[in-house]
Amino acid sequence: MQSQSIHGPTNPRDSVEGVRRLTSVIELKPRKEKLYRELHADVWPDVVKAIKKSNIQNYSISLARIGGKNYLFSYMEYTGDNLEADFAAIAQDATTRDQWWPITDSCQSVIAGSPEGSQWMPLEQLMLIP
Amino acid sequence: MQSQSIHGPTNPRDSVEGVRRLTSVIELKPRKEKLYRELHADVWPDVVKAIKKSNIQNYSISLARIGGKNYLFSYMEYTGDNLEADFAAIAQDATTRDQWWPITDSCQSVIAGSPEGSQWMPLEQLMLIP
Repeated sequence: MQSQSIHGPTNPRDSVEGVRRLTSVIELKPRKEKLYRELHADVWPDVVKAIKKSNIQNYSISLARIGGKNYLFSYMEYTGDNLEADFAAIAQDATTRDQWWPITDSCQSVIAGSPEGSQWMPLEQLMLIP
Repeated sequence: MQSQSIHGPTNPRDSVEGVRRLTSVIELKPRKEKLYRELHADVWPDVVKAIKKSNIQNYSISLARIGGKNYLFSYMEYTGDNLEADFAAIAQDATTRDQWWPITDSCQSVIAGSPEGSQWMPLEQLMLIP
């Protein structure tokens, strides 16, 4: 997740009962899989703190192997009322910005077609059964 | 989702406070995108009913375009205590089995490496921040 990855709901059903579901995808470099696994099995407390403070809950990242490549699928729920400000706050967290993202970014390959300046590529929600 | 797609948590952290998060992926045939969108914008009531009855909540499907292909990423939460039986019950729902799945299956291409007899390919959860 990066500040540049901010994206609103892709359709109105993304927001149900004040919860916006945001999904995105990025490629994981094969030689970085071990490091990525270790980091995400035990996310640093300050990084978690910044995420929670910015009204993000139920945030998971899962690994898919498709056609010999590794993809990371991210799912999170945003419960605040100012997504842009809340994501900007995460980007201003020193630990996240100066230590966590430099490492995680080095593990990831941006997928062609991702928004300008973005790490993760937002997905479009087609169905929601709350 | 198909009965053959049953899969348990990929690691212990999948189950937090009685909720198991299940994610999976499948390819969407380009010529079926319109049909798939229409179906999932308004899932049939009987199909929804069978899903809810089987202790599945917060079930979403999102579309990713990667390398010229369309992929569907599925996220759901299972709150029951017998995943196999609950998924089998969905597979026995007449509307789902005889009408919904034949259409949705025809829209999807199974990804190489998916479990034997399975439609969707399960992902492995690497991170969870509840």
